[in-house]
Amino acid sequence: MSESAVPHRITGKTKLLFILGDPVAHIVGSALFNEHYRRNGIDAVISPLHVLGEDLGMILGAMRRMRNLAGFGVTIPHKIPVMAHLDRTMPRARHVGAANFVRREPDGTLVGDNVDGLGFVAGLASSGVGVAGRRVLQIGAGGAGRAIAFALAEAGAAELRIANRSAEKARLLAEAVQAAYPDCRCSSGAPGTTNVDLVVNTTSVGMRPGDPLPVDIQSLGPPVAVADVIMTPETTPLLVQAAAQGCAIVRGKEMLINQMRLATDFLAL
Amino acid sequence: MSESAVPHRITGKTKLLFILGDPVAHIVGSALFNEHYRRNGIDAVISPLHVLGEDLGMILGAMRRMRNLAGFGVTIPHKIPVMAHLDRTMPRARHVGAANFVRREPDGTLVGDNVDGLGFVAGLASSGVGVAGRRVLQIGAGGAGRAIAFALAEAGAAELRIANRSAEKARLLAEAVQAAYPDCRCSSGAPGTTNVDLVVNTTSVGMRPGDPLPVDIQSLGPPVAVADVIMTPETTPLLVQAAAQGCAIVRGKEMLINQMRLATDFLAL
Repeated sequence: MSESAVPHRITGKTKLLFILGDPVAHIVGSALFNEHYRRNGIDAVISPLHVLGEDLGMILGAMRRMRNLAGFGVTIPHKIPVMAHLDRTMPRARHVGAANFVRREPDGTLVGDNVDGLGFVAGLASSGVGVAGRRVLQIGAGGAGRAIAFALAEAGAAELRIANRSAEKARLLAEAVQAAYPDCRCSSGAPGTTNVDLVVNTTSVGMRPGDPLPVDIQSLGPPVAVADVIMTPETTPLLVQAAAQGCAIVRGKEMLINQMRLATDFLAL
Repeated sequence: MSESAVPHRITGKTKLLFILGDPVAHIVGSALFNEHYRRNGIDAVISPLHVLGEDLGMILGAMRRMRNLAGFGVTIPHKIPVMAHLDRTMPRARHVGAANFVRREPDGTLVGDNVDGLGFVAGLASSGVGVAGRRVLQIGAGGAGRAIAFALAEAGAAELRIANRSAEKARLLAEAVQAAYPDCRCSSGAPGTTNVDLVVNTTSVGMRPGDPLPVDIQSLGPPVAVADVIMTPETTPLLVQAAAQGCAIVRGKEMLINQMRLATDFLAL
């Protein structure tokens, strides 16, 4: 264990946070958040909390009464169901139809936001990759994909093409983003890489050894940038190939770092 | 912050624990517990949780459903009220009428125990001070005092004299201990120090600068031992004087260390 991986001293003044999920045994993001708090002198501690779907409403009710609870992160499978239990939701969360952070206000009010997409776009920006006016090919239309698609349009992407294993899901997402952001040309279809400035993988393809590449990028080179949401491996095979071809690359880690910063602000820590 | 004061890395495999109280801002014991877990390689983290009395039942209900919750400590003002919400209680807790630790079993069952008194007696033992066959003068009949009185009788004290600002409270406690432990001669009254082998302070007198001594021990010397439950200051004025007179002394810290060990066993960490 590295000294930097531990949170600071937990006392009665420490703000509590949870990450609600089912299962939770695989969650290690809490350690990264606690390291972020410690490094930034934030007196808060976050712990995964194993909550079954059937217990979500009851546990959220109790959380309203936990006076030193600052809020909680939400992960699979609760990101969508949690929306029905909140008092207020930010427009970002409503667009996506899912929340990944909930702030508990001092009177027990629960306010939901979704910083998955904004964290991703901020990760691009901090890597010097702009979105405004760019033509984007996005692979995947799942939970992370939904949040990222809306955030890319919000950040001013000129064009957003969504390719997904289930074409219907891609079509529905493209339509929803188009309705919310009329200025962004949204479409769905095969993952063609012609006339693209930015390729974004939002699927988990690339996590497991032996995975195929989620998209064929053989024809791409500078100034096209390639980004991936996957955290492990830190540099996915897709990014290895993109870098070899001279493309700018953005790792999933960048998204997480920016999510932590955004979540810290949202949770008023 | 010393490196030794921090808990280890919190992940989805970490067992959660709380300390329920109102208020909680003054609580620092959580940091000591987390240090204990870290030093002993126990993958658990404990955080104070601010729960109002009116919310106790509802929050305990939710805790039954928190699947990675191992249990919780209970402090002021919940030690007595919590008893009504538990599925099972250990005889120690029933004697005292209060629980200070609750184990959550995998099916959500809540089991209460009280290790305040046993921790105190174990602290005496680990300092080489025996209780069996001894004549004890105990100052105080409050929450800690109740737990300690029963534990002293359980440990085989020959005689237990209880002195308390409220004489009625001392009398009731002496009667309750006498009923549970017929072999221990229990009484209440003024804090006389003749024919005493062990003097125990269970009050908070000695915590604040300028406090009077909780009992006049001028006439005492070896082999009489003097013990105090106060943690801060580590060596109270009572213990300073006792040591100056050659008495063996036992600090509140010893009680805490032994409580942590006992609570860790009880919580099956």
